[in-house]
Amino acid sequence: MFMHNKRLQYTVRVAEPNPVLASLMLEQFGGADGELAAAMRYFTQGLGELDPGRKDLLIDIATEELSHLEVIGSIVAMLNKGAKAQLAEASMEEAELYLSMTKGGNSHTQSLLYGGGPSLTNSSGVPWTAAYIDSRGDPTCDLRSNIAAESRAKIVYERLINITDDPGIKDALGFLMTREIAHQKSFEKALYAIEDNFPSGKLPGIEKYANVYVNTSQGEGDMDGPWNSGEQWERIDDLEQTMPFDDGDGSASVVLDKADAKTAEKLAVRTASVPTGDPTTGVDLGAGAGAGRITGDDKGAAADVDDAVKMADAM
Amino acid sequence: MFMHNKRLQYTVRVAEPNPVLASLMLEQFGGADGELAAAMRYFTQGLGELDPGRKDLLIDIATEELSHLEVIGSIVAMLNKGAKAQLAEASMEEAELYLSMTKGGNSHTQSLLYGGGPSLTNSSGVPWTAAYIDSRGDPTCDLRSNIAAESRAKIVYERLINITDDPGIKDALGFLMTREIAHQKSFEKALYAIEDNFPSGKLPGIEKYANVYVNTSQGEGDMDGPWNSGEQWERIDDLEQTMPFDDGDGSASVVLDKADAKTAEKLAVRTASVPTGDPTTGVDLGAGAGAGRITGDDKGAAADVDDAVKMADAM
Amino acid sequence: MFMHNKRLQYTVRVAEPNPVLASLMLEQFGGADGELAAAMRYFTQGLGELDPGRKDLLIDIATEELSHLEVIGSIVAMLNKGAKAQLAEASMEEAELYLSMTKGGNSHTQSLLYGGGPSLTNSSGVPWTAAYIDSRGDPTCDLRSNIAAESRAKIVYERLINITDDPGIKDALGFLMTREIAHQKSFEKALYAIEDNFPSGKLPGIEKYANVYVNTSQGEGDMDGPWNSGEQWERIDDLEQTMPFDDGDGSASVVLDKADAKTAEKLAVRTASVPTGDPTTGVDLGAGAGAGRITGDDKGAAADVDDAVKMADAM
Amino acid sequence: MFMHNKRLQYTVRVAEPNPVLASLMLEQFGGADGELAAAMRYFTQGLGELDPGRKDLLIDIATEELSHLEVIGSIVAMLNKGAKAQLAEASMEEAELYLSMTKGGNSHTQSLLYGGGPSLTNSSGVPWTAAYIDSRGDPTCDLRSNIAAESRAKIVYERLINITDDPGIKDALGFLMTREIAHQKSFEKALYAIEDNFPSGKLPGIEKYANVYVNTSQGEGDMDGPWNSGEQWERIDDLEQTMPFDDGDGSASVVLDKADAKTAEKLAVRTASVPTGDPTTGVDLGAGAGAGRITGDDKGAAADVDDAVKMADAM
Amino acid sequence: MFMHNKRLQYTVRVAEPNPVLASLMLEQFGGADGELAAAMRYFTQGLGELDPGRKDLLIDIATEELSHLEVIGSIVAMLNKGAKAQLAEASMEEAELYLSMTKGGNSHTQSLLYGGGPSLTNSSGVPWTAAYIDSRGDPTCDLRSNIAAESRAKIVYERLINITDDPGIKDALGFLMTREIAHQKSFEKALYAIEDNFPSGKLPGIEKYANVYVNTSQGEGDMDGPWNSGEQWERIDDLEQTMPFDDGDGSASVVLDKADAKTAEKLAVRTASVPTGDPTTGVDLGAGAGAGRITGDDKGAAADVDDAVKMADAM
Amino acid sequence: MFMHNKRLQYTVRVAEPNPVLASLMLEQFGGADGELAAAMRYFTQGLGELDPGRKDLLIDIATEELSHLEVIGSIVAMLNKGAKAQLAEASMEEAELYLSMTKGGNSHTQSLLYGGGPSLTNSSGVPWTAAYIDSRGDPTCDLRSNIAAESRAKIVYERLINITDDPGIKDALGFLMTREIAHQKSFEKALYAIEDNFPSGKLPGIEKYANVYVNTSQGEGDMDGPWNSGEQWERIDDLEQTMPFDDGDGSASVVLDKADAKTAEKLAVRTASVPTGDPTTGVDLGAGAGAGRITGDDKGAAADVDDAVKMADAM
Repeated sequence: MFMHNKRLQYTVRVAEPNPVLASLMLEQFGGADGELAAAMRYFTQGLGELDPGRKDLLIDIATEELSHLEVIGSIVAMLNKGAKAQLAEASMEEAELYLSMTKGGNSHTQSLLYGGGPSLTNSSGVPWTAAYIDSRGDPTCDLRSNIAAESRAKIVYERLINITDDPGIKDALGFLMTREIAHQKSFEKALYAIEDNFPSGKLPGIEKYANVYVNTSQGEGDMDGPWNSGEQWERIDDLEQTMPFDDGDGSASVVLDKADAKTAEKLAVRTASVPTGDPTTGVDLGAGAGAGRITGDDKGAAADVDDAVKMADAM
Repeated sequence: MFMHNKRLQYTVRVAEPNPVLASLMLEQFGGADGELAAAMRYFTQGLGELDPGRKDLLIDIATEELSHLEVIGSIVAMLNKGAKAQLAEASMEEAELYLSMTKGGNSHTQSLLYGGGPSLTNSSGVPWTAAYIDSRGDPTCDLRSNIAAESRAKIVYERLINITDDPGIKDALGFLMTREIAHQKSFEKALYAIEDNFPSGKLPGIEKYANVYVNTSQGEGDMDGPWNSGEQWERIDDLEQTMPFDDGDGSASVVLDKADAKTAEKLAVRTASVPTGDPTTGVDLGAGAGAGRITGDDKGAAADVDDAVKMADAM
Repeated sequence: MFMHNKRLQYTVRVAEPNPVLASLMLEQFGGADGELAAAMRYFTQGLGELDPGRKDLLIDIATEELSHLEVIGSIVAMLNKGAKAQLAEASMEEAELYLSMTKGGNSHTQSLLYGGGPSLTNSSGVPWTAAYIDSRGDPTCDLRSNIAAESRAKIVYERLINITDDPGIKDALGFLMTREIAHQKSFEKALYAIEDNFPSGKLPGIEKYANVYVNTSQGEGDMDGPWNSGEQWERIDDLEQTMPFDDGDGSASVVLDKADAKTAEKLAVRTASVPTGDPTTGVDLGAGAGAGRITGDDKGAAADVDDAVKMADAM
Repeated sequence: MFMHNKRLQYTVRVAEPNPVLASLMLEQFGGADGELAAAMRYFTQGLGELDPGRKDLLIDIATEELSHLEVIGSIVAMLNKGAKAQLAEASMEEAELYLSMTKGGNSHTQSLLYGGGPSLTNSSGVPWTAAYIDSRGDPTCDLRSNIAAESRAKIVYERLINITDDPGIKDALGFLMTREIAHQKSFEKALYAIEDNFPSGKLPGIEKYANVYVNTSQGEGDMDGPWNSGEQWERIDDLEQTMPFDDGDGSASVVLDKADAKTAEKLAVRTASVPTGDPTTGVDLGAGAGAGRITGDDKGAAADVDDAVKMADAM
Repeated sequence: MFMHNKRLQYTVRVAEPNPVLASLMLEQFGGADGELAAAMRYFTQGLGELDPGRKDLLIDIATEELSHLEVIGSIVAMLNKGAKAQLAEASMEEAELYLSMTKGGNSHTQSLLYGGGPSLTNSSGVPWTAAYIDSRGDPTCDLRSNIAAESRAKIVYERLINITDDPGIKDALGFLMTREIAHQKSFEKALYAIEDNFPSGKLPGIEKYANVYVNTSQGEGDMDGPWNSGEQWERIDDLEQTMPFDDGDGSASVVLDKADAKTAEKLAVRTASVPTGDPTTGVDLGAGAGAGRITGDDKGAAADVDDAVKMADAM
Repeated sequence: MFMHNKRLQYTVRVAEPNPVLASLMLEQFGGADGELAAAMRYFTQGLGELDPGRKDLLIDIATEELSHLEVIGSIVAMLNKGAKAQLAEASMEEAELYLSMTKGGNSHTQSLLYGGGPSLTNSSGVPWTAAYIDSRGDPTCDLRSNIAAESRAKIVYERLINITDDPGIKDALGFLMTREIAHQKSFEKALYAIEDNFPSGKLPGIEKYANVYVNTSQGEGDMDGPWNSGEQWERIDDLEQTMPFDDGDGSASVVLDKADAKTAEKLAVRTASVPTGDPTTGVDLGAGAGAGRITGDDKGAAADVDDAVKMADAM
């Protein structure tokens, strides 16, 4: 069961309102790596977790992330406090309010739709979606996902710190950023406290495919590194060997029963294309006087585009 | 630039059509951890990558994932081949077709909307969204995200293998699953080939918050583990200490200029609630003869619910 | 700041696993009227609220809804506990696992993708979206939205109670449903504690349009009621009067400067349609031997459709 | 059946083009509380409604909202008329067109993607989604949702009026805003014309939980109001009483059969964490020369962050 | 199977970084008509295609679109290269970085969330969704959809060319635009190589409804054209004839069995509205001192709105 | 302005309730090619259209599609009428209601969430999104999109007809399907009434790229057809010629100023990978006793997977 104390986990002191900055801060409120995503990732994992230690850990951190959601949401609310009142009270001329609302970011939607309250959207106004949550019910996957998510949340806080010179906001963001570092460390410990954590799940891989590196992208810029070279790797540069990897013919097939085979044949015949001849098409009907309006000569393409513009203008 | 050879990376041999199984396989075609997600995650990272080695790695694996998308999509197409033709040709009575389409999974939508072709949805018919992609343009984040994504893709393949007894499909899924293991290994190598990869980004954490574990969830079930105990952790059980963590008062504030302060005051006054008195509400108007229809006695809640049903029936 | 106690707000006793029922219960976990939607609706309002009483109320109820999210999520986790382990351990034959996963609802995705953990989706597997949240930063709107949301949550719990005969689940759902009733009552009190709460906002309506009822849908079935009849309503049945309501000509116009007017004219001319003549179209090219394949006679349309099928079969 | 007359319900006179303002107006065209949402909310309810009076009301207002969609869409089209032609005809230099397109709001997408036509998105370019529609097939819920939706639509129109000084647009918006007031009144009448409208549905609440107010958020700022105080409320401040509310132990349990219990045990053992010891983790491998890059001293956190930046710069 | 060569299909030469322009270019990377949409439209069709010629065509073009995705993504990466490094290294003062990030478009999200890498979003930051893909598994539909999609992609490239004066970008966009023209021509040929391609599918239309044009929108502005006039059309102006089109009464009905009929009746009675009387509503409770705050006189509505503002101010 | 008559455009006679069939019918109510998508596609185009003839056409057909939305929605409402009442009145035992709700399709969500009313979702329960709408503000694009959309709507109706044996529903679907054929014909006429309709827009293509067919997918199955062969096509089989198409080197570059170049260099150095050496990774830490759990021998992969299962079981 959750409880709440009205004091924040970190004091929020905002020097002056700034709705554009508020709209950027939303990235950590309702964005993909924001605090709601963090809280819900760990909370959903915690509810399904069988191991009592990990369950405790997941709910601990989920709960703390909710407190962080409150801190970042409070920053947003403070940054919007002036704009919210101005619009609600119509305290300025229309043209002045219009200007104040179109200064950048997505602050216009924050004011018009959300009335200056913190919205569960990212900095582009995209509503938060549970598609951001990658809990899969396997602890070795989920802990890796959590480690990655914490590292992402850290970098987004770093970026926000880099663009903010309000000392109170910087302060709070520094705290929040550091807590993500601490959480990543906890999740790392939890992952490696599972003795056999690689690969995820129970089913081993098939040996002959497990140490192969397929060099599918070739040409100038092909590089060596520990990820594709060295003792543990069998690297394939001749891609013909992998078409297919197995000893089949690389085709796709299914065994249809007689009735289905006949029906499929019927469908194929009915919709067959006639590969010969040159049918008249809609393009032929529609190319008009401009004869398809294609231009060209031996100059560069940019010059061609310029010609094209002129030609089009002449029409 | 991409090229294509008509042979698959792994031969697909499907024993018989099964549109319900096809709809489950979509999880790895258009699902959150499916092959399109994998390909696009690495491809978008590769385009923005500055390090030539990692760029090569990312495009290599992105390209291979596209080939995997083709393999799993071909499995789906083969499993649907019979149903596709049956519906297109109306080769059965209506009632028979209806039954064949409502056997489970989301095969009904696969037939009605997608005509039996593989659709970029998950196994519930949810369209693929780039919200699944967590590329952030920082290599230590992105590689961690890739490691986690590969471990998730591995487990979903394992689950699909566990429910399939078609040997040809099992074969192909085993190959695909193993390649995720190999990719995870490559991404791990690439992460640790960055000498200073923790924490992500450039900005260090603040020391006094970096080793603290906040025990926000308490009560029976509180556990110790390397994630919250031991030398490196300062664990806080008395949560009052964290309200707030800093030396402030845990409130949120902003400095408004005079005009804004006055406007905000005006708004507050206009929308103030009157905390005393007991206003008549819509509920009072609408509770009707049933007097709010609340039931209760000293039995358990389930019995109450049963009583409630009876009471409601009597109405 | 949030805290958590490991005991639930209501004890969850599930009689036996049932992953299909679990997938239905998700409606109140990650569905449109589920507990996350409730918690986030009130939490976002609370952060931006200026009135101390309402702020307290909103955070109180938001916090309780998080505890409800935990209760319903625990029910889902318990209902999935068997299926989760079976799939993870592959404790049954493939065919058996396949059957257990395709029994209805969206339990297949719950197992394949979420590994039996509670997912933030509705009962069709649609991921939760903040598009469900209608907080607008005006208390008279937001409280009305909350009242409506609580009434919706109540009815969905009632529906779940109606299909569940597990007494422990029924018990917990009865508790949760009743709390929605209590919350609705609180929000009603808060709405009417604002003295002047209608219409929302500050700007009055324009008198001549405020009491008009436009009878836009006419014909048999036109009804009278207090919503369109009686002293307070001016009802318009002759719709010509409302084309337009004002004294203009009902057209849309904009004043373009000379340059824009000329450019718009140029665009209009370039893309003008030639209203005379009967151009050959793609349809004419493609109607084929079947001559457009239209059938008809003087029988009913269903008979026509049957004929059509026969005709098509003959092709 | 729907019919259409080419005259608008309100004449639209726009003084001059302004694509940024157009992008803001979209909030009421394709936004969450816009006219399409209104029309579809009432239309879907009307189709399923059993009561002839309410069915008539719902279709009447749904139809009028479609006419409002036409009015607001026409405003958007007029505001975009100049920009649409300029881009289509390329009537200005590239740099000039680029500047005209990046003046704020989301007008850039309106021009690039939608060609200056009104798009069914909100003012941030988010496509309209039926997730906005909260029709639930119960009249007491649906009417409350409609009342709330009308109050929200009213406030968004008020905000748009507050930022517009074009008299023709202001005029039309004033009309549209007032109609939302009228509609709210109709829906209120329809709600209270149902004699027993609270709580929604048929099932009564359980008495012992129906009048309880749980004070889950405590600390300075705890307030009294008619929503939690007074005769009708039993207020709980000692939260221990609610852990749990019932007489159980507040845990979650399910009865597994023998086979499932064994399988679950197997899974738990296989993925158990080893709570003792201090495993080496990826963090230990990756903290690099910077030794985890944590900085700290006894200054404020903002100062720490500044130090951190310097330290990072020195690297 | 896919392969990759590190050279692009078209050389990308960007004259200088411009993150705002980058965010506009995203329309063709992760937008509705962008290259991923194109590639995935044809790829999913190709996998399910039965005709070998069309299968070859679809995979050919799908593969080329992936190469185009790489070209446009590389343009975005180059345009962002400066901003990416500036933010990652915090090479400027906070205020300067803040300004550089809020210059327009959605470049702020591109920097904060995606770190300057190309993101699979449109120019408003909306994540790519497979809802853009309209593959339906019928070749005559799918080819028409492809023709339309190519024409849309062409126009969006044209718009981007019109706002760009960087010759290298213009060059590459000109190439990409022209390839869409070529692809449209191929798809047209493939459509008309199916002899009987209209109407789609196998089932003919019903003659008596197939040549009717219903003039549902009437009034000044009613026009004639080959789409509604001429020999082939039977045009209906008297809409009463179409209420309904068939010989029924235009109502909707279902035959319920006795039990269902009784239950439906019970529901209707329970939720019936009382059409007489004038119930007190929430509006009556809430209209407050302002008496519903409606204003009006015989001036225009804009004047009314102005009055309203004054009146509201006076409160 | 829109008006409504209570009679449907086609009489709906449903023989008996069937909520599973209802959930399939939703494809044409709230699905991608359903009637709302059609109505909104044409309506948004009509509002922005400059040509009076096309404007008339678009609004005519948009209005008729709204009437079709009403017909298909009424079918859904009738099919759900029994289930709606049963659940609302709880007229059956819980177990019976549960069974009736889990018979297939997505009828469970239709009952639980939407209460048996028609919902704006597709047959998988995915909410309708304006991402389905491809209006682009250019008539030659939009008309092609409309033609394609009508052909798709036709095929989905055909599929629904093929699975329905209720004569009244078949009748109404046959009518609706035929109207799509008629609409396609109108849009074709309107497209070819624009004299110069190919390519879309104003800018011509560049000649040297406009007639080239790039054979990107090679191998067995390479085919000839009018789409890549014949006089008008220059076909490229040697892909090296297209790496790149222009005379550059196929690389991507941007000119950075000195400061940016230095910053980018700094970032590259800071995050460089060390291509030599073989770093210990998380995988090495986590592979556990199972030594990475890879299995293999010279049998087929399916046998390997089986071995793997056994090996895993032995653990």
